Amino acid sequence: MSVPISSKEYEANEAASVEVATYMHSVGQAARKAASTLRRCDTGTKNAALLAMAEQLDQARQTVLAANARDMQRGRENGLDAALLDRLVLDDTRIDAMLEGLRQVTALPDPVGEIDGLQSRPSGIQVGKMRVPLGVIGIIYESRPNVTMEAASLCLKSGNACILRGGSEACDSNAAIGACIQAGLVDAGLAESSVQVVATTDRAAVGELISMPEFVDVIIPRGGKSLIERVSRDARVPVIKHLDGVCHVYIDATADKAKAMAIAVNAKTHRYGTCNTMETLLLDASIADDMLPALAAAYADHHVELRGCERTRAILPDVGVATEDDWHAEYLAPILAVKVVDGIDAAMVHIERYGSHHTDAIVTDHYGLARRFMAEVDSSSVIVNASTRFADGFEYGLGAEIGISTDKLHARGPVGLQGLTTQKYVVFGDGQVRQ
Amino acid sequence: MSVPISSKEYEANEAASVEVATYMHSVGQAARKAASTLRRCDTGTKNAALLAMAEQLDQARQTVLAANARDMQRGRENGLDAALLDRLVLDDTRIDAMLEGLRQVTALPDPVGEIDGLQSRPSGIQVGKMRVPLGVIGIIYESRPNVTMEAASLCLKSGNACILRGGSEACDSNAAIGACIQAGLVDAGLAESSVQVVATTDRAAVGELISMPEFVDVIIPRGGKSLIERVSRDARVPVIKHLDGVCHVYIDATADKAKAMAIAVNAKTHRYGTCNTMETLLLDASIADDMLPALAAAYADHHVELRGCERTRAILPDVGVATEDDWHAEYLAPILAVKVVDGIDAAMVHIERYGSHHTDAIVTDHYGLARRFMAEVDSSSVIVNASTRFADGFEYGLGAEIGISTDKLHARGPVGLQGLTTQKYVVFGDGQVRQ
Repeated sequence: MSVPISSKEYEANEAASVEVATYMHSVGQAARKAASTLRRCDTGTKNAALLAMAEQLDQARQTVLAANARDMQRGRENGLDAALLDRLVLDDTRIDAMLEGLRQVTALPDPVGEIDGLQSRPSGIQVGKMRVPLGVIGIIYESRPNVTMEAASLCLKSGNACILRGGSEACDSNAAIGACIQAGLVDAGLAESSVQVVATTDRAAVGELISMPEFVDVIIPRGGKSLIERVSRDARVPVIKHLDGVCHVYIDATADKAKAMAIAVNAKTHRYGTCNTMETLLLDASIADDMLPALAAAYADHHVELRGCERTRAILPDVGVATEDDWHAEYLAPILAVKVVDGIDAAMVHIERYGSHHTDAIVTDHYGLARRFMAEVDSSSVIVNASTRFADGFEYGLGAEIGISTDKLHARGPVGLQGLTTQKYVVFGDGQVRQ
Repeated sequence: MSVPISSKEYEANEAASVEVATYMHSVGQAARKAASTLRRCDTGTKNAALLAMAEQLDQARQTVLAANARDMQRGRENGLDAALLDRLVLDDTRIDAMLEGLRQVTALPDPVGEIDGLQSRPSGIQVGKMRVPLGVIGIIYESRPNVTMEAASLCLKSGNACILRGGSEACDSNAAIGACIQAGLVDAGLAESSVQVVATTDRAAVGELISMPEFVDVIIPRGGKSLIERVSRDARVPVIKHLDGVCHVYIDATADKAKAMAIAVNAKTHRYGTCNTMETLLLDASIADDMLPALAAAYADHHVELRGCERTRAILPDVGVATEDDWHAEYLAPILAVKVVDGIDAAMVHIERYGSHHTDAIVTDHYGLARRFMAEVDSSSVIVNASTRFADGFEYGLGAEIGISTDKLHARGPVGLQGLTTQKYVVFGDGQVRQ
């Protein structure tokens, strides 16, 4: 940013920006137009489009794999790391998973048109809330090309037009998948512009996408924390986002020991890289002597490194010191911070101070403490006596999820089809006027 | 902004800003702390506080009226116009209305803790969504001091702490009402900082209030369009807002003539200054000859000025010309724009292009058209065969409203207690782990 550029370079950049802005505006305009058709599109047509997209992808398998091979080649030349390349690569198994995903979304109930709480009012009108699409959804994501199909299917099923901006490293794959999506839309008689894959890798496109409230109703960034922070900071459009998953399990004095062990081990070791993985374990002081050695042994079996508070280290002298940074850390790795606390109040103070309001669990057999934890912990998922790993759209029965929101407004927790809709009031009258 | 100021003035401003920032941070911090207590506060305690606030206000009637008299005196000296002074003034009737409002909010059901859709999942966990407070709500409003009590009561009942920033012209009134509120809170054993009235008229306080996501969860601006636009543009906190109410009534060819007349007259003339008042009347061409003269006569009885399209003026030659500005106008006055359109599609195109997504109504006896209008018009309230004036928290049965949102995310339409809450997922398990 601070590197001086010549005025010629500057002019060239300016010209490129103007071009990107013009392009993104035309994309936005087309999406807004498509949204007004999709809003009234019946379930059968949307399902037909989803199945046609699957059919098109299945037929274009070789084209998509060839496009992905070009992305992989370029990625290797550009020195992308192994984890990134793993997220980028497509093979028949991943394409089959995309097809299966499309069939699953087809089978989900259509949220659009559902009317909640219709009631008769003393004036004679009937009032209810009807679930309707948000309109146009912009999705910004990183290297995984299967997100292109997943996001498109969820937006379409919920009656929204969408604009998809994937990472530049996946541009050929995304374009090929986008072509299948648009062919499927056309097969079902829907506008191609119902789903648009941004056709430029210019980063200015993201800046435009998040600054067009006239064309875009909500932005969903999916990816690393820096992407999400940047998008949230600069967006002039509402953002549904998930930043951190610093999740806790608190084992209370009354906890069933076997259940506590199972939950504490599962919440950490079931998968390390997921946002609902436990990052800090809190234990009541009265059971620390009894439980910590057994827990340490179980974690050692899974090669999980422990970092503890002073009281933990008094019981487990081999454990490293947890610093302030550890309490804030989303490790996404086989590392666990461990803290001995004095009861539920201290546990909840810790969670409020260091947590990310994502998912927190208590293990307890005490009715009143379960109720308190449920009511008082201000997280998108609050769990009693189960693993934090359940905080997931599929496990919660949403059928699919486009992300997990740690925001409080609109969607909170796993975001499924319903989170891609809004409710408007509908009034049925017979000529009533206000007195 | 562009007036150059001396460096001395600049330093003085800077010093003031630092002071305001420090003050607002302490207010925010206190609110955040109060919110963590209010979140778990039972309904009985909140109701007791509401009634204690009423008791305190009733006892402090003379003090509040004296404070208001000082505001009025200063307002007259500063040349405030009659409408502003009317909004500013308090008398016994208005204080009685505030007391009645407090009793009504006390009687409303507590939304907090309600669990929706609790279901058992194949894994054995039970999942539902629990309604919980948002946390800290910042409310920015203009001259009406009764908003202070109304906003405080709705935030308290929904378990939220709030920071209230009223117009500087009402500062003495707001401080006096704020003192009653805080005394009532203390009577019920709650922290004073549950409701804080910002004690500085420095405009920098607003800038601080909307830029403290660490302390404030949502901002609700209430007042004129310029205030709301400024707050929305600059806020770093989510905003629940309502900008324009450009509401339409469309009279279809099949409409019952008597009902159409009654609705069209009521929607315009019941009150002129409200956001759910009709501003543009749309009529199907096939009934324009028949209905326009009768409508014009009815509006003439109410001294409503009509401004029409060419086709309207062909039938009603005395009517003035409606310009592009008229279709966009929220008159808030006895003026009505009238347009003859070719059927429901043209009506909906007009509404989409010129409307503000607030409230739009159709008068029709055609089943299919009623269904289409309901599904396709993208407004916070969509009404069939009733006046737009019903779009209101009380008429909809919310019990009270803090505003009407024309945003799509979170709250849409009239915002009552439920709009001041959010839903988190709660999971009840018996030791389940993820397989």
